[in-house]
Amino acid sequence: MTTLGFIGLGNMGGPMAANLLKAGHTVKVFDLVPAALDNLAGLGAITCGSALDATVNVDVLISMLPASVHVETLYLGERGILPHIKGSTLVIDCSTIAPSSAQKVSAAAHERGITMLDAPVSGGVGGAVGGTLTFIVGGTSEGLARAQTLLEVMGENIFHAGAAGAGQVAKICNNMLLSVLMAGTAEALQLGVDNGLDPAVLSEIMRKSSGGNWALEVYNPYPGVMPGVPASKEYEGGFLVDLMIKDLGLAMEAALEKGAATPMGSLARNLYVNHGKAGFGRKDFSSIQAVFNKKPAE
Amino acid sequence: MTTLGFIGLGNMGGPMAANLLKAGHTVKVFDLVPAALDNLAGLGAITCGSALDATVNVDVLISMLPASVHVETLYLGERGILPHIKGSTLVIDCSTIAPSSAQKVSAAAHERGITMLDAPVSGGVGGAVGGTLTFIVGGTSEGLARAQTLLEVMGENIFHAGAAGAGQVAKICNNMLLSVLMAGTAEALQLGVDNGLDPAVLSEIMRKSSGGNWALEVYNPYPGVMPGVPASKEYEGGFLVDLMIKDLGLAMEAALEKGAATPMGSLARNLYVNHGKAGFGRKDFSSIQAVFNKKPAE
Amino acid sequence: MTTLGFIGLGNMGGPMAANLLKAGHTVKVFDLVPAALDNLAGLGAITCGSALDATVNVDVLISMLPASVHVETLYLGERGILPHIKGSTLVIDCSTIAPSSAQKVSAAAHERGITMLDAPVSGGVGGAVGGTLTFIVGGTSEGLARAQTLLEVMGENIFHAGAAGAGQVAKICNNMLLSVLMAGTAEALQLGVDNGLDPAVLSEIMRKSSGGNWALEVYNPYPGVMPGVPASKEYEGGFLVDLMIKDLGLAMEAALEKGAATPMGSLARNLYVNHGKAGFGRKDFSSIQAVFNKKPAE
Amino acid sequence: MTTLGFIGLGNMGGPMAANLLKAGHTVKVFDLVPAALDNLAGLGAITCGSALDATVNVDVLISMLPASVHVETLYLGERGILPHIKGSTLVIDCSTIAPSSAQKVSAAAHERGITMLDAPVSGGVGGAVGGTLTFIVGGTSEGLARAQTLLEVMGENIFHAGAAGAGQVAKICNNMLLSVLMAGTAEALQLGVDNGLDPAVLSEIMRKSSGGNWALEVYNPYPGVMPGVPASKEYEGGFLVDLMIKDLGLAMEAALEKGAATPMGSLARNLYVNHGKAGFGRKDFSSIQAVFNKKPAE
Repeated sequence: MTTLGFIGLGNMGGPMAANLLKAGHTVKVFDLVPAALDNLAGLGAITCGSALDATVNVDVLISMLPASVHVETLYLGERGILPHIKGSTLVIDCSTIAPSSAQKVSAAAHERGITMLDAPVSGGVGGAVGGTLTFIVGGTSEGLARAQTLLEVMGENIFHAGAAGAGQVAKICNNMLLSVLMAGTAEALQLGVDNGLDPAVLSEIMRKSSGGNWALEVYNPYPGVMPGVPASKEYEGGFLVDLMIKDLGLAMEAALEKGAATPMGSLARNLYVNHGKAGFGRKDFSSIQAVFNKKPAE
Repeated sequence: MTTLGFIGLGNMGGPMAANLLKAGHTVKVFDLVPAALDNLAGLGAITCGSALDATVNVDVLISMLPASVHVETLYLGERGILPHIKGSTLVIDCSTIAPSSAQKVSAAAHERGITMLDAPVSGGVGGAVGGTLTFIVGGTSEGLARAQTLLEVMGENIFHAGAAGAGQVAKICNNMLLSVLMAGTAEALQLGVDNGLDPAVLSEIMRKSSGGNWALEVYNPYPGVMPGVPASKEYEGGFLVDLMIKDLGLAMEAALEKGAATPMGSLARNLYVNHGKAGFGRKDFSSIQAVFNKKPAE
Repeated sequence: MTTLGFIGLGNMGGPMAANLLKAGHTVKVFDLVPAALDNLAGLGAITCGSALDATVNVDVLISMLPASVHVETLYLGERGILPHIKGSTLVIDCSTIAPSSAQKVSAAAHERGITMLDAPVSGGVGGAVGGTLTFIVGGTSEGLARAQTLLEVMGENIFHAGAAGAGQVAKICNNMLLSVLMAGTAEALQLGVDNGLDPAVLSEIMRKSSGGNWALEVYNPYPGVMPGVPASKEYEGGFLVDLMIKDLGLAMEAALEKGAATPMGSLARNLYVNHGKAGFGRKDFSSIQAVFNKKPAE
Repeated sequence: MTTLGFIGLGNMGGPMAANLLKAGHTVKVFDLVPAALDNLAGLGAITCGSALDATVNVDVLISMLPASVHVETLYLGERGILPHIKGSTLVIDCSTIAPSSAQKVSAAAHERGITMLDAPVSGGVGGAVGGTLTFIVGGTSEGLARAQTLLEVMGENIFHAGAAGAGQVAKICNNMLLSVLMAGTAEALQLGVDNGLDPAVLSEIMRKSSGGNWALEVYNPYPGVMPGVPASKEYEGGFLVDLMIKDLGLAMEAALEKGAATPMGSLARNLYVNHGKAGFGRKDFSSIQAVFNKKPAE
């Protein structure tokens, strides 16, 4: 069994830490929100009064924070914890942040002899609770080997994307492509419906043909076609439009930094931003379907 | 065994007719190109001197022509064959044309008591030769039941999309979505590569994640990632950019007719048209990758 | 003074015919809507019981109809009037329709020895009432010379775009560009406002700089910046979103026919269609600003 | 007469400093490139051995550098000059950089009691040489009042966009809109040409109509329509595609920071990046026309 520190106990971090506890590990937790700490304490976690406390005498330190600025502040800020982490501690940041941020923190860790992985996840709150997350990992193979067993407690699929920051790059590439698939699938379904097709029939034909993609397979955006998915629950739950906009922002930044062209992803971001402005920010991202199937005012 | 007429013996129609001959059917063929006729004659077909001749005493008539104008002219033109077709003949048009054209011809057939199906195919020349095409059929269930055995000679998957014209609608929706998947996959792969990822590693991660789609599964556009696909053969063969542009044109027409919005498909069409203008019209459509991975002139 | 026939007395045609009457011409009018006829009768027009009647013994025939299908039916339909028009009559169609439709009707007129012009207008209802329309004319110089005086009664600017159909082409190119200017101006203004600028100050800077365009000059889309324009009247009046969508549809058709790429115009069309679906179809087209300045739901 | 420091003597900064010398001011100059220093020395400038030297005993300090990173390093870096600048010195940064960078440096200056303006320019090398630049200024009115006479030596138009950083915001909004105008004008012209129009005739019609914009007025992108512009000189000179890509990158960053949607500007950026990748980076930005008027390979 391992002694871990876990910083960031939100919708994702909370259940991830809970799964580590259930697997028998010792987990020292910290979050700025007292209720989050209390919740984990009830599951057997050791609560800490500061992020720094959660780094003391642990073999592995995991962080799960909202954005680049939080991760950079935690590790590298004026009161950053990096100088206080022992060289033998494996650090795993599971936040989804800019690749350049991940590389910056990882390089600083490396300078101090600390092995650090960027390991953003996909699978949402359901995956965090069920321990079925996908981890997309950047860092050394040795680092990943040390992390493997712990990641398997929290997730089902673990991919090694490459060196430091590569986990972030792969995740934002995937999510940019996902936004394109979803918007493209939504407009194709509506084009078929507008031309008289049954959306379920068209979905099935495209799913088995060259239009086949993840959305048609397990996350159909058209209401009523697939039971259980957000589209059949008024787009509640799932992966929020606001979070897709965040990830698309990271993809755009990565494209700007490298001078890359991403016409489809850029358009998808703009469609999603406008969709959010129209009031759908807290709905599932498959609600982009609503952009296409609204009818003109009579 | 059935006696068929088959009009249009090009790259697709030729091997389709050949497969019907191999299966033991009697096939009366016509094409404006003598060499195409000779080729089928060598395989046992009965060659005809006109399209009209190919309609005489056949149980089923199949046509496979380039575009709406050819189909409308064949059936409804000044010398159109529709008035000469017996009411008991099943007519199957396998061309990819505008849904409105398909509906117009089908309605004219229906008025004369003739059952007509629109049955555009996907699978390309390879599928036509190997008898592994996908047929997407519009028309009545009764009509499709009559056609089923013959279509199975030429193809593996047969979908019933709905009433007359629905086969065309479903095909153009699928191909529009395909163009979006392909362009989106290409730019996501290049964004990853520009940020230091191995395209094969990124492809595998996205294939198994929510970015999964047909292109990553069987038709990866990045050179060298997947053996045997056009991307690994300098984009030779496959589904030509010019044909994708044609199908996207049909999708745009269908969107204009119904006042539908197709932002992703519209952008994909424009990317493909510019790609064609840059000299890639006769390359496989996965060559859209080249738009993204060209490097700036030094 | 000239004796004219005038077919189509809607929001545009009505005031255009009225201006011809005011100038002292004899005008025989027809419309399917009795109230429209009554209105013109009150101004001194001779009302006709059919379109055909309006063509008898006139020197010039003007039509102003909603779309291609109406123009083709009027002139070339089963009961079309073209065969009944005298060769000496100058025919001027002021409808905004597909260039291919304009060319088809014009060619049929030419075959019968009739000179025909396509002369779509811009300037809206205000321009029609005030006699300040812009006419963009396709056809021969001789034809235009014959029309000049009459067009000057109804409009201020008369452009000769080229041969038959060229008036339509020029108008749809202009209006496609206009949609791009307007959407681009709206998003640039909002980007400035989101970054703390005063929209009036930014408008003035861009108007005098390389971002200068018609919208900034006379039709600013940001509420409150320019007095009297639709943006300062809750986007009432002006040029309706639905009409812009119609014109963009004609532009897209013209692009599809010629295999042209119009990425900016295509995107503008999709933005406008979605804007229409969100309930803005009957608002002025500068209301596209609202797409950008809505704020996310809290 | 004023004693100034001038840091950054490139294609723009060099002639700007020269104009200040010609007007009789004393100018202490610095650049990392010795030849640039020599050139200005020949015109009467006092050359300095470091940026810091150029700040000693000057009333006004002007900087003209390539990008945000250079400006931040110059003023705020480890060896940054800001701590050494007297409180009475007026600092004017004429670089085009991120608004957030401009605000950061300006805030640091303000903390030290120094008045700083961001004053990015437009007008290109020609404007710098001729003293006809446009300055778009962010900062206090008092600061601008102190700068006015000097700016008028180098430019013709001086706009006050707002508080610190506002000059940068206004400039990138303008240039984003300019990219949209140019791409939209280019595709509209080609759509007309593809449909048989003369580009000069169409240009003139749109210029005087609602499609009117700066490009049609003074910078027509179609070869041969307007004498003297880059389009009539094989797109040599002018405003380089690479520089437009840089400015569009700044606009995209500003949009990402504020969650703004810029669909037209985003698409224009992607078109320009692909255009640059196709080898046009060092051509004038009106060469985007070439994307549209290339013909398909035969």
